[in-house]
Amino acid sequence: MKKYLAELFGTFWLVFGGCGSAIFAAAFPDLGIGFMGVALAFGLAVLTMAYAVGHISGGHFNPAVSLGLWAGGKFSTKEIIPYIISQLVGAILAASALYIIVSGKASFETIGGFAANGYGELSPGGYSLSSAFIAEFLLTMFFLLIILGSTNERAPKGFAPIAIGLGLTLIHLISIPITNTSVNPARSMSQALFAGGEYLTQSWLFWVAPIAGAVVAGFIHKALFDKE
Amino acid sequence: MKKYLAELFGTFWLVFGGCGSAIFAAAFPDLGIGFMGVALAFGLAVLTMAYAVGHISGGHFNPAVSLGLWAGGKFSTKEIIPYIISQLVGAILAASALYIIVSGKASFETIGGFAANGYGELSPGGYSLSSAFIAEFLLTMFFLLIILGSTNERAPKGFAPIAIGLGLTLIHLISIPITNTSVNPARSMSQALFAGGEYLTQSWLFWVAPIAGAVVAGFIHKALFDKE
Amino acid sequence: MKKYLAELFGTFWLVFGGCGSAIFAAAFPDLGIGFMGVALAFGLAVLTMAYAVGHISGGHFNPAVSLGLWAGGKFSTKEIIPYIISQLVGAILAASALYIIVSGKASFETIGGFAANGYGELSPGGYSLSSAFIAEFLLTMFFLLIILGSTNERAPKGFAPIAIGLGLTLIHLISIPITNTSVNPARSMSQALFAGGEYLTQSWLFWVAPIAGAVVAGFIHKALFDKE
Amino acid sequence: MKKYLAELFGTFWLVFGGCGSAIFAAAFPDLGIGFMGVALAFGLAVLTMAYAVGHISGGHFNPAVSLGLWAGGKFSTKEIIPYIISQLVGAILAASALYIIVSGKASFETIGGFAANGYGELSPGGYSLSSAFIAEFLLTMFFLLIILGSTNERAPKGFAPIAIGLGLTLIHLISIPITNTSVNPARSMSQALFAGGEYLTQSWLFWVAPIAGAVVAGFIHKALFDKE
Repeated sequence: MKKYLAELFGTFWLVFGGCGSAIFAAAFPDLGIGFMGVALAFGLAVLTMAYAVGHISGGHFNPAVSLGLWAGGKFSTKEIIPYIISQLVGAILAASALYIIVSGKASFETIGGFAANGYGELSPGGYSLSSAFIAEFLLTMFFLLIILGSTNERAPKGFAPIAIGLGLTLIHLISIPITNTSVNPARSMSQALFAGGEYLTQSWLFWVAPIAGAVVAGFIHKALFDKE
Repeated sequence: MKKYLAELFGTFWLVFGGCGSAIFAAAFPDLGIGFMGVALAFGLAVLTMAYAVGHISGGHFNPAVSLGLWAGGKFSTKEIIPYIISQLVGAILAASALYIIVSGKASFETIGGFAANGYGELSPGGYSLSSAFIAEFLLTMFFLLIILGSTNERAPKGFAPIAIGLGLTLIHLISIPITNTSVNPARSMSQALFAGGEYLTQSWLFWVAPIAGAVVAGFIHKALFDKE
Repeated sequence: MKKYLAELFGTFWLVFGGCGSAIFAAAFPDLGIGFMGVALAFGLAVLTMAYAVGHISGGHFNPAVSLGLWAGGKFSTKEIIPYIISQLVGAILAASALYIIVSGKASFETIGGFAANGYGELSPGGYSLSSAFIAEFLLTMFFLLIILGSTNERAPKGFAPIAIGLGLTLIHLISIPITNTSVNPARSMSQALFAGGEYLTQSWLFWVAPIAGAVVAGFIHKALFDKE
Repeated sequence: MKKYLAELFGTFWLVFGGCGSAIFAAAFPDLGIGFMGVALAFGLAVLTMAYAVGHISGGHFNPAVSLGLWAGGKFSTKEIIPYIISQLVGAILAASALYIIVSGKASFETIGGFAANGYGELSPGGYSLSSAFIAEFLLTMFFLLIILGSTNERAPKGFAPIAIGLGLTLIHLISIPITNTSVNPARSMSQALFAGGEYLTQSWLFWVAPIAGAVVAGFIHKALFDKE
């Protein structure tokens, strides 16, 4: 039970921190943090919670991560569903908190796309469905290779949250212009529910591509890198 | 006695570094560091002093942190008052030093809001009292969850100052537009005393919301995450 | 075999992350990550993969690094060629993936220089061949001094990927304006093949200068710093 | 002998990296790294070299650091002069390399102030002599408190280069607008020699204030924080 709450808190923080920085601070006139600050925020959310509750739940905070670890032989089948539910609940609660806070802004009228993910017309830089799919697939695949590699027993002890958190920062540095960066179906779902319309219609891609990339990484790691 | 001086030095550095970067460097024409640089400065102030004097005082530098650790069962009741006094003295000395330095600027006329916190009219992005309260409550709550989690005996040894410092960076990446980010009554008080007027009137919120969030986090951690 | 695949994956990630952030995100209107974000991306690509597969292949991801380690007495002669081939394959696959993704951008017409390196007319800031050569030589020399020093048995254990990755970030903070920063012939080659023309003609410098700097560093380290 | 060369290389890297990023990349049109990037560059130069050669020379790279450590009882009197000479030689060699590289820029006409430090008319933000002195004194004092504290035997092992390097980043985030940030007489001297004129006349302050702050910190640490 504790581990489900740890996943809920961790995913809340990932969405509240990552998407919150995008919504509140990215485009603030003159002093805003831009894509760079948002990339840092997503990564630090994972880094901080991985140190805080990683020893309780493993610190997934992401359905694709849970499934990639399962494919890599590091996570038991019976935990998949409760982990994913905990992650979705945490993400949606965070999106609700963001909505309440942003509603209290003097000039607030509409949330627009919130911090939702999208492709084609909804891609920040106008990238196509296939570009978006390839990017999300490859980025999640490497995210899992980083997670599986840095938590491997032969890797230096204690550093994995740094590698994993800053890996997520790097992923955002590359791909915010492409899809607004998902690699995490719970993060995507929480925003699409508030953004609605076409964002919700497109949300399938942010389940399929990240999970496919994660599972492929799990198999690659198990076959190639896991044991001497 | 040594630990009170360590808290005084640490909180001086937090205010001198964090608020100083905001006052001197955030809005420097063309090359300024923006909210991103200020967020980094606050975090690095805590990271550096936590490594420097954390082994002496625990490295709180913040009345809300002291109270949250107390609620979590990690800090003794009789130390609360001397710690908070040390933190306030350090913060106010730092604000004085900032004031003296900025007074020596050629174009200096008025300090305006210094780096004070505020809501409503005094919120950088025009966020309401209730938005400000919710944000400060949630952010301080998660700050304490990070502190309590990363210093837990089951967490990797030695990494807590990284998690805690960069956690404070993340908190600023999210919320400078909302309240100019407090999560620390000593930091807020030191600036409000110089900014005066309405900033001082509003300073109650930056005691109540952070402390409430911190204490709730202490209870959550003790109930859920502290022991196996 | 596993180590060659680790080098291939690692160099893919270095080029996909570093050059990808430059191509997709550096100059995004208003919110782009600039040279700072690209510098961070290159460094984090190495940091993350060094934690993920460093225990398998040593985490070179760069022909100049392999040759510098060889000159420093830390890498066997017979591994040089297979490592360099693995790195080139990984880099070229990454460039191909970047090309496919960027081709799906609505406004895409030409790749221009991709993220290729250059001097003279092709230097971002208009630096001459000799400035470019000196910069690439010195920066790769120090990159190898960092690698050889931080992986030395007397250095603290486990921190080398942080020193090495952030060292590469620093190198980019200095020299993107000079040559677009190489210090890595595989990274340079992968981009020059797509940029073509004069970029390809100039690519000799990004083999010669980094490798010369790396080999000199290897000899310096072996002579001066390796043993007590 | 090895330790003097380690100090020479380390101080070369600090000046080449920190001042180089300022000269080449800070004000690059649209994509430049700004004060934030320069702050990161100075810090990462120290972080990387402290991991690379810290186990050989202690990793001072700064006459004020050597004197502060001496005042704190951590550095022997007879090593002071050779260390400072090594640091000055490294810094001046780096400034020469920067001058040669920047001379090869197509639009190069004059080096202006190079990356020199200054006050009054030569302060980036127009800060007075007394503001500059107080800032340099306080910042170097805290820099030494961070160094002495994080390398203390009770601090976590191996993390000191992170605390010290990122401490220098923080110092630059605060004070580039005030003095262009020295806290290091070798760094200041190397730039003033090339900038000449008034910059050279003002260079006394960047010896006196940093060394005074460092020595005070050494005494404070020895009296208060060194032993249980």
